[in-house]
Amino acid sequence: MLPTDRYVSETTFHVRYAETDAMRIVHHSSYIVYFEEGRSAYTRDRGQDYANFERNGLFLAVTEVNARYIKPATYGQRLTICTWIENVKSRGIEFAYLIVDADTREKHVEGRTRHVCVDREGRVRHIPDEWRVWAVDHKSQ
Amino acid sequence: MLPTDRYVSETTFHVRYAETDAMRIVHHSSYIVYFEEGRSAYTRDRGQDYANFERNGLFLAVTEVNARYIKPATYGQRLTICTWIENVKSRGIEFAYLIVDADTREKHVEGRTRHVCVDREGRVRHIPDEWRVWAVDHKSQ
Amino acid sequence: MLPTDRYVSETTFHVRYAETDAMRIVHHSSYIVYFEEGRSAYTRDRGQDYANFERNGLFLAVTEVNARYIKPATYGQRLTICTWIENVKSRGIEFAYLIVDADTREKHVEGRTRHVCVDREGRVRHIPDEWRVWAVDHKSQ
Amino acid sequence: MLPTDRYVSETTFHVRYAETDAMRIVHHSSYIVYFEEGRSAYTRDRGQDYANFERNGLFLAVTEVNARYIKPATYGQRLTICTWIENVKSRGIEFAYLIVDADTREKHVEGRTRHVCVDREGRVRHIPDEWRVWAVDHKSQ
Repeated sequence: MLPTDRYVSETTFHVRYAETDAMRIVHHSSYIVYFEEGRSAYTRDRGQDYANFERNGLFLAVTEVNARYIKPATYGQRLTICTWIENVKSRGIEFAYLIVDADTREKHVEGRTRHVCVDREGRVRHIPDEWRVWAVDHKSQ
Repeated sequence: MLPTDRYVSETTFHVRYAETDAMRIVHHSSYIVYFEEGRSAYTRDRGQDYANFERNGLFLAVTEVNARYIKPATYGQRLTICTWIENVKSRGIEFAYLIVDADTREKHVEGRTRHVCVDREGRVRHIPDEWRVWAVDHKSQ
Repeated sequence: MLPTDRYVSETTFHVRYAETDAMRIVHHSSYIVYFEEGRSAYTRDRGQDYANFERNGLFLAVTEVNARYIKPATYGQRLTICTWIENVKSRGIEFAYLIVDADTREKHVEGRTRHVCVDREGRVRHIPDEWRVWAVDHKSQ
Repeated sequence: MLPTDRYVSETTFHVRYAETDAMRIVHHSSYIVYFEEGRSAYTRDRGQDYANFERNGLFLAVTEVNARYIKPATYGQRLTICTWIENVKSRGIEFAYLIVDADTREKHVEGRTRHVCVDREGRVRHIPDEWRVWAVDHKSQ
C-alpha cells in the first residue's frame, strides 16, 4: 500500500475529543486536517518546514481533496498518518496519505490533495526545486 | 452547471472568522463542513430533517469526499451552497454540491460525497424509500 | 437577563453536525465560535461590518473568554445568539452573549469576551468612536 | 506559576495550520481544544485514560471555561500545555492550564475549566475517588 520508491513521512497523535461527532466517531472533516498535519510533518522531516516556506512568500494553495473512509476512528485512539509526494510538476504538487491505527496498522482513511504554488499576491509560481528532489529522493535528510 | 432534472436545495450563510486560516482565506476543510450543512438543509427543505432520521436509528456514514477548490472565499462573505442528490442505490447515496458567492454566483468550490446507510450497530441498511423519491422528484414538498 | 438600556443584536442558525462531539451534544468550544459569529452579526446590524474594520487595518484581538454552560444543545437545533457591548474603554471593549433556543428561548450558554484594538503591527490602538457610541446607543442604525 | 504541591501533566504538540485564522495567529477557540487535550494527556499520564472513563458510563461535562490570552502563537510553533487539577469536590472538578512555548517557556494562554460528573442519562454523579487522590497526589503513577 505504501510506496517503496520514495520517502514516506510518519507522524503519530491521539484523536482529540473535539474531533469526534455525535456518531461517536472522528468527524470526516477532521481527517482533512490530519492530512494537512501530515504535510507539515513531511516538511519538518525533510528539514525545511512549511512555516519557513511561507516566510519566503510562497504558499501551497489546495486545489483538490479526495478522501476515502474505510473504518471509523474514535476518541483517544492513536493514529499514524503516512504522507508522501505522489507527483510533482513545475507548478503543481500532489500529496498522498494513509491513516492507520498506530498499533495495529489497520487502515482508516486514505486520500490525496493537489496544490499549486502561489505567492502573496496569488500569482502561480514554480514549485521550488527541493520539493521535486524530495519526490524522488528516497532518503530522509 | 446545476442539474435541472432534480431538486436543488440552496442555503446561504456568512463565512465565520474561525473558518479562515493564516492565508487569510477560508480553510479548505471548512468547505467539507459546508457540504454537510448543505445536506442538512436539503433534508430540512424536504420536510424530513436528518436529526429525525437519526432519531429513527439510521445514519448516513460518509465513505468518500471529493472537493475541487476554484476560488478562495474570505471572512464575512455570503456563500450559497447548492445541494442535490446525484445518485441513489439500495444501500448508498451520493450528494453533489456547488458553493457560490451569494450575490455574484461566482463559483468557489464544487464537490461530492458518498454515503452508506448504517444502523446504531454499524450494520449496512437500505436507504429509506423517501430518499430515492427525492433523487428523482423535481419539486420541493 | 438581556440588557434593556443598549442595543442587543440577535442572529439565529442551525447547529451543524461537525459542531457536536461524542457526548452527542454541541462541543463546548463551538460556542466560542458562536460568540464570535455573534460579534460579526452585531457589527453587520450596526451597518459597519468587522470585515470592513479589518480592511482599515484595525483588529479586535481577544484577551479573555468566559463561558458558562447551562444546558447542552444538539445537532439541528435552532439557536439564537444575543450579543451586546457590555463595556467600552479607550483601548478595550467587552462583549457579552446569551445563547438561547430560538423557539423556546431556554438558556443554553452565556459568556463574555474582552478585546483590545490593535493595528497590523500589533500595536494597541484606540477603539474607534463609533464603537463607543454603539455601546450606549439603544437603537439600531 | 505552576503549582508545586500537585501533579502537573505536560504534553507538547505543533500548532496545525487549520488552527490559525486570518489574523495569522492561532484562533482563540483552538486553545479551548488544547485545554481539552491537556485533560486527556493528564488522564493518560495517570494511567486511567478518559476514553476508559467514558466506557464506564461516566462523563465530565464542561460547565465553565475561562481563558486569558497573553501572547499569540503561530502555525508550526511547538506548544506545551501544562495541566493540573485545581480543585475537586464530591460532584465537581476544576482543571487549570498553562500553555507555553515548548522551547522558551514563554506564556501564551492560561485558563480554567469546571466540570460535573454525569452518567449516560445526564444525571449528576460522584467524581470517582481516584480523581480526588490525583488532585493531592504529587507523583505520577
